[in-house]
Amino acid sequence: MRKNYLYFHDKFRTGEEHVHPVEKILLEQRTHYQFIQLVESPVFEKMLIIDGDVQSTLRDEYIYHEALVHPAMLLSSNPEIVVILGGGEGATLREVLKHKSLVKALMIDIDKDATDIAKEYLNEWHKGSFDDKRSVLISADARVFIEREVSNDSIDTVISDLTEPFEGGPSYKLFTKEFYEVLYNKLKDDGVLALQSSLLRVTDYRMHSTIRHTLQKVFPIVRSYLTYIPSFDTTWSFIIASKKGDPLSLTKEKIDELIANKITGEVKFYDGTTHISMFSIPKDIRSLLSLETDIITDESPVCILRKENL
Amino acid sequence: MRKNYLYFHDKFRTGEEHVHPVEKILLEQRTHYQFIQLVESPVFEKMLIIDGDVQSTLRDEYIYHEALVHPAMLLSSNPEIVVILGGGEGATLREVLKHKSLVKALMIDIDKDATDIAKEYLNEWHKGSFDDKRSVLISADARVFIEREVSNDSIDTVISDLTEPFEGGPSYKLFTKEFYEVLYNKLKDDGVLALQSSLLRVTDYRMHSTIRHTLQKVFPIVRSYLTYIPSFDTTWSFIIASKKGDPLSLTKEKIDELIANKITGEVKFYDGTTHISMFSIPKDIRSLLSLETDIITDESPVCILRKENL
Amino acid sequence: MRKNYLYFHDKFRTGEEHVHPVEKILLEQRTHYQFIQLVESPVFEKMLIIDGDVQSTLRDEYIYHEALVHPAMLLSSNPEIVVILGGGEGATLREVLKHKSLVKALMIDIDKDATDIAKEYLNEWHKGSFDDKRSVLISADARVFIEREVSNDSIDTVISDLTEPFEGGPSYKLFTKEFYEVLYNKLKDDGVLALQSSLLRVTDYRMHSTIRHTLQKVFPIVRSYLTYIPSFDTTWSFIIASKKGDPLSLTKEKIDELIANKITGEVKFYDGTTHISMFSIPKDIRSLLSLETDIITDESPVCILRKENL
Amino acid sequence: MRKNYLYFHDKFRTGEEHVHPVEKILLEQRTHYQFIQLVESPVFEKMLIIDGDVQSTLRDEYIYHEALVHPAMLLSSNPEIVVILGGGEGATLREVLKHKSLVKALMIDIDKDATDIAKEYLNEWHKGSFDDKRSVLISADARVFIEREVSNDSIDTVISDLTEPFEGGPSYKLFTKEFYEVLYNKLKDDGVLALQSSLLRVTDYRMHSTIRHTLQKVFPIVRSYLTYIPSFDTTWSFIIASKKGDPLSLTKEKIDELIANKITGEVKFYDGTTHISMFSIPKDIRSLLSLETDIITDESPVCILRKENL
Repeated sequence: MRKNYLYFHDKFRTGEEHVHPVEKILLEQRTHYQFIQLVESPVFEKMLIIDGDVQSTLRDEYIYHEALVHPAMLLSSNPEIVVILGGGEGATLREVLKHKSLVKALMIDIDKDATDIAKEYLNEWHKGSFDDKRSVLISADARVFIEREVSNDSIDTVISDLTEPFEGGPSYKLFTKEFYEVLYNKLKDDGVLALQSSLLRVTDYRMHSTIRHTLQKVFPIVRSYLTYIPSFDTTWSFIIASKKGDPLSLTKEKIDELIANKITGEVKFYDGTTHISMFSIPKDIRSLLSLETDIITDESPVCILRKENL
Repeated sequence: MRKNYLYFHDKFRTGEEHVHPVEKILLEQRTHYQFIQLVESPVFEKMLIIDGDVQSTLRDEYIYHEALVHPAMLLSSNPEIVVILGGGEGATLREVLKHKSLVKALMIDIDKDATDIAKEYLNEWHKGSFDDKRSVLISADARVFIEREVSNDSIDTVISDLTEPFEGGPSYKLFTKEFYEVLYNKLKDDGVLALQSSLLRVTDYRMHSTIRHTLQKVFPIVRSYLTYIPSFDTTWSFIIASKKGDPLSLTKEKIDELIANKITGEVKFYDGTTHISMFSIPKDIRSLLSLETDIITDESPVCILRKENL
Repeated sequence: MRKNYLYFHDKFRTGEEHVHPVEKILLEQRTHYQFIQLVESPVFEKMLIIDGDVQSTLRDEYIYHEALVHPAMLLSSNPEIVVILGGGEGATLREVLKHKSLVKALMIDIDKDATDIAKEYLNEWHKGSFDDKRSVLISADARVFIEREVSNDSIDTVISDLTEPFEGGPSYKLFTKEFYEVLYNKLKDDGVLALQSSLLRVTDYRMHSTIRHTLQKVFPIVRSYLTYIPSFDTTWSFIIASKKGDPLSLTKEKIDELIANKITGEVKFYDGTTHISMFSIPKDIRSLLSLETDIITDESPVCILRKENL
Repeated sequence: MRKNYLYFHDKFRTGEEHVHPVEKILLEQRTHYQFIQLVESPVFEKMLIIDGDVQSTLRDEYIYHEALVHPAMLLSSNPEIVVILGGGEGATLREVLKHKSLVKALMIDIDKDATDIAKEYLNEWHKGSFDDKRSVLISADARVFIEREVSNDSIDTVISDLTEPFEGGPSYKLFTKEFYEVLYNKLKDDGVLALQSSLLRVTDYRMHSTIRHTLQKVFPIVRSYLTYIPSFDTTWSFIIASKKGDPLSLTKEKIDELIANKITGEVKFYDGTTHISMFSIPKDIRSLLSLETDIITDESPVCILRKENL
């Protein structure tokens, strides 16, 4: 049997490391914005690693991408125009395209090299989604593009699938109150914004809680939700920020009915029970979230948060 | 600042390792049954490690122990007689003692050295619970003791807080259909059994699913639930097996009311919303659980399962 | 600056591991006989790893290859016919070709895929040596080829650059008393055999001492020598077994004179002082070597030695 | 069999790590100057670790301590007064006491807590040497003490067994040209100074070469020597700086004769052949040492060298 000699070390700010055997290096490429590695793991199959962080793996990426996309899109009535911020692998786009009402999915990712890599090497992620007639891929700074090119009240759903807003990183100005105000204005009256919002567990919650608190200054309804991602070894959080609809008002049965009526293709993780599970935040986490006072603004864009003292 | 030089390597059957910095070794002791280490971690504070597996940590043990005890005890009407199987640290006992109706908590742990260590060094876990007048600690093989010394229809709740049933380990015969039948008979008509039932995630689910399937042969109501434990880096599972009551029938509001009426002292993790969260198993996991066909019996006690090919 | 996320774990039988950052995977290929990896290390530049063991690195391969070749070839009077056993990278061949007297270097390596890889990717090792008119590369089992195709009393120097003789490995029958007798017969009257003979340090010496002891049953003069190889993190041993010449009889000055007269091209590591250093075995090691009683034969080819209990 | 769960990570400035299993923590103590750990390793038995660096182990400490003491003391004619700088474990003192001519061994170590720990816990190292009537232990800054309390021309041999002179560390001012001038003056006409002088290998040589070059500005004879220490996984260097005697002038036979006449008790590593081995520096290392131009002075005490860019 093949023994493993190479390992990916997933290093945490706390000094802890998760060591994953690597059977094969499929790709290593440095783009202008990030360092991309695609490796083969005996446990998680293909792993996509960006700047040393596990981004998603073939074994469990469906959890992340279904969790990010479907709650928001089912909360929008019949979403026709959807904007994806980031979303390099194309798997977020893949899930968006499953919605029958969709007319146009605009994916705006700053890193053209990364999306080119995705097109060529990550077919198992995007499943050809970039070639769907409803898909439009824009290589641009999402904030600049949206501010200049998108009309007010024109978007049904925004899905923010960005890397975390560390100083100097490409997502730096896409997590601020000012940008959320821009998104608010571009969204229709019943528009919904969904975001990936960092890991969330009792030992690590500040990144999530500041994003959440910032959104609360802009949107009337802001709901955290979370689920466990095996390849991240942690619970991961998402947020729905909406103008009208509230994901907490949807019953298990209603979700199952919506899925049956509005989605085509397989949904492996998300259903009514999963929805209830994700939006039911345990008491200890809720207590921590309620304490947050910081707000992320253009002027203090990462709100003094750096990876080291997250 | 103190740099770390010593590390605890939490090794997984898959070849993956989680490496935790260790600031101090507080205790190392080999008992007849297990190797016990108590170390100081910068992230998780004191960590109790048994035979190389993280057992519980001061930082997050409340999640595990509240999840194990309260759903079952609130499902029993007014539990007076509770039996704890295993439970070395004394934290399961601590949670049991919070229930106002309790008359007697019988904790049966085979490893007297381990419970002696707990009494002396783990006060932060048990908080003096061994000295409570309602507590009785028995050092014995739980199966032998229960079969011989406990009358039928006499127990309200059984809490199984055992290490996993690996071959040759002390818990080996405490996870079989035959033992569950014994417990069924010892429980009152509305009796409830709660168990810790190993890690549960899409990449590792067989230990849980075989325990669950075995219980389904004995108890009319069997419900899996799960929550994320940060120091385990994974979701952990529990099962409620009951003669009458069904935890799925309890609403969020009912749970909050029961907690207010029946529990004294602080509950940090468990409440109505947490209950809903834990008992709502995501779709992908539910699919996997439904496939199980194995049953654990005295004759094939670990049902061919060994740690390596779990 | 580039951070490292991938690591090569060099695992020792003792449970110790040396963890080397890896900046790039240049090549990974499984041949019929072995698993070959070529990676880029920030410290050792290109590292050649075979079956999880560091074979040689660009940064320090000259130490190993000069140590293996030059003492034996300078001890032979004017070596014309040299046989290399193994020697995949071509760097042993490179050093052999530096000797002015050389007429023909016969390199016999069983793994054609490995030497093809060397030809294509390891130019920095072999420096075109495979194309030298004096080089002949034979892809064959060295023992079978030498027994059948090589005349007695025909070889000046044999350089054994084989991987270690673990059971089932390709070098299994190339470290036995019977094979050494074959080599003895094929060597001229003043012929010399040099071997790489595993790591040698007070904590790990049995592989060396059994090879040495076996050779002592066949050759009148057997001399151990050793030097430190940085990328191996240990001292590595070699043996000269000869019919007449004794490396201990050569002075520092004589070696320097021989190098000046008989070698063309640069020699970075080996000179008179280095020779004295390598052949002066510290007292504690000498004591251990003197205790050996095992002999490796065709019938007990690895003399019960396996990597685990070396 | 006992499995290992705790590991000591020996971290190198290059990003490499050597991971040693640890079976038991025997001692952990922070003194005013350093963090001391004594652990049990399956390979090296007891390991003494100071500030995260392996200091010495029971399995191989004799190599280091014999190499440090005996060449210098045998080079002094009949050393009566010997000064040890540092030397916490007491093993350097143990070797000094083996010399028949010795009248007084003055050990000056700044860290009283560390020598107290040594007295209590490291008997296997010092073997009661602190109780020998010839031993005097001074807890003081060695430089201040020697400058003020020691007469000129009064010492036969100085053995410098100090931790490395990193900025802010306790040995900071004990590796400078000015201090070496002090030592020169305190030594008798045929006095000898021996120092441990850091690791020395082609990938890491600057610490050694700057110490060596600094000594060359003060002493007429300066000789580097080196040997492999298994628990350090590297060759380690020493220097003899002397007023008259030259270790290179001693033959193998002369060393063996001196050992027989002047030393009582067992010497396991050092003898004539070992002496020749240690003082024969390979050609590649000699080339590197010859390039050094830096000098360590009180004003630039670590000569811009920090552990990170050694």
